[in-house]
Amino acid sequence: MIIKILTLFPEMIKGPLNLSIIRNAQDKGLLDIEYINIRDFAENKHKKVDDYPYGGGAGMVMTPQPIFDSYDEAVKKLKVTKKPRTIYCSPKGKVFCQELALELAKEEELIFICGHYEGIDQRIIDSLVTDEISIGDYVLTGGELPVAVIIDAISRLIPGVLGQNESFQEESFYSGLLEYPHFTRPQSFRGLDVPSVLLSGNHKAIEGWRKSKSLEITFKRRPDLLEKANLTEEDKRIIDDFKKHS
Amino acid sequence: MIIKILTLFPEMIKGPLNLSIIRNAQDKGLLDIEYINIRDFAENKHKKVDDYPYGGGAGMVMTPQPIFDSYDEAVKKLKVTKKPRTIYCSPKGKVFCQELALELAKEEELIFICGHYEGIDQRIIDSLVTDEISIGDYVLTGGELPVAVIIDAISRLIPGVLGQNESFQEESFYSGLLEYPHFTRPQSFRGLDVPSVLLSGNHKAIEGWRKSKSLEITFKRRPDLLEKANLTEEDKRIIDDFKKHS
Repeated sequence: MIIKILTLFPEMIKGPLNLSIIRNAQDKGLLDIEYINIRDFAENKHKKVDDYPYGGGAGMVMTPQPIFDSYDEAVKKLKVTKKPRTIYCSPKGKVFCQELALELAKEEELIFICGHYEGIDQRIIDSLVTDEISIGDYVLTGGELPVAVIIDAISRLIPGVLGQNESFQEESFYSGLLEYPHFTRPQSFRGLDVPSVLLSGNHKAIEGWRKSKSLEITFKRRPDLLEKANLTEEDKRIIDDFKKHS
Repeated sequence: MIIKILTLFPEMIKGPLNLSIIRNAQDKGLLDIEYINIRDFAENKHKKVDDYPYGGGAGMVMTPQPIFDSYDEAVKKLKVTKKPRTIYCSPKGKVFCQELALELAKEEELIFICGHYEGIDQRIIDSLVTDEISIGDYVLTGGELPVAVIIDAISRLIPGVLGQNESFQEESFYSGLLEYPHFTRPQSFRGLDVPSVLLSGNHKAIEGWRKSKSLEITFKRRPDLLEKANLTEEDKRIIDDFKKHS
């Protein structure tokens, strides 16, 4: 996958994307990320990239010219025959979720535009952006962190990025339930013990305990997820039990 | 505000937090962030911080000892008399939103624990964590990016971090509606024009256009937000009009 990131602050986004699994993906040649500094394309003398909003109001707005020109530069370097999917993050966007991550992970080429200040000129969004995405209902300083979050989520879904063992684990999330609690050594730490069922060696009992914990946590914290989850008749019976006792 | 971040990858989180508004907040002395490397506290010979999960399954789990000890170190450096709010990010957590950001921005001291691999031993969550938070319904490589997102969202709410002009703008988000589109110079770019109302100088007309755009975007993209928004009778009439024509 080829990713072009248009940003005013490449350093803000390089750190998180140059470590761990995303670093490995780049080293393996599965992911090619290029940072394009929007300011390099500003045609005015002072390399200014923002201006006051028409109609008044607080804050500055990023101007069309430097972003359109850096976008053209990004597209020129792609092998695209069709208009590449171009993502802009803002609280106004479609809410990001695992399904959207899976969809984007299938693309061969992606462009990300990082906004700053009060936002970017709407003509950029109307002409260039194919996907306006929100990573959640909160206000952030700029687009760099949400873009890093989206790239992290989609990179790990590119075939070959995660080992088979790790990929398998992902699947459990797709069942639509929240994960059961994890425990590792030592068996007892500062007087806190691992639940005995996990030490029993009885795989059926362990699987049952984990499924029941997943259902309980999802029921208590995110009942909205239960509606979309793939539940068996046995799962539904367990949830009815929770309802009776809550 | 004093923030202690327990992490295996300080570099992954320093980049995004050392620039822009959060950098300014630290320079002004309004925010003091310390990175504590969990691995430095591993007592075993190979500085191992993870182990296989009890009960089997894929992936590794972060062990209790290095995290408990780095937490103790963080607490020792705080002025706390009460147990400090301690945040751990996972998809199982409470969903992060602007209201939660406002609540956390009132704390004087916060501890963040960044997880990695398959997660952290549940005894850490049960004993140390006061707030398990999810920034959205997607799977990420580790806790560093979500922690950076949360710190970005709360830092800008600390009094004095944003200028008065910028703070004012934030207020509009709190009305519960999505923002209207922004336009800046030039008036015409590549054949694309700024809406003429914004050039009219008629402040009442501009305000009316912006409110109507906010209502339209929220109605089309996130009708769920309208239920919680503070709407006037006039707003409700405009939305009824949208409903009739959609």
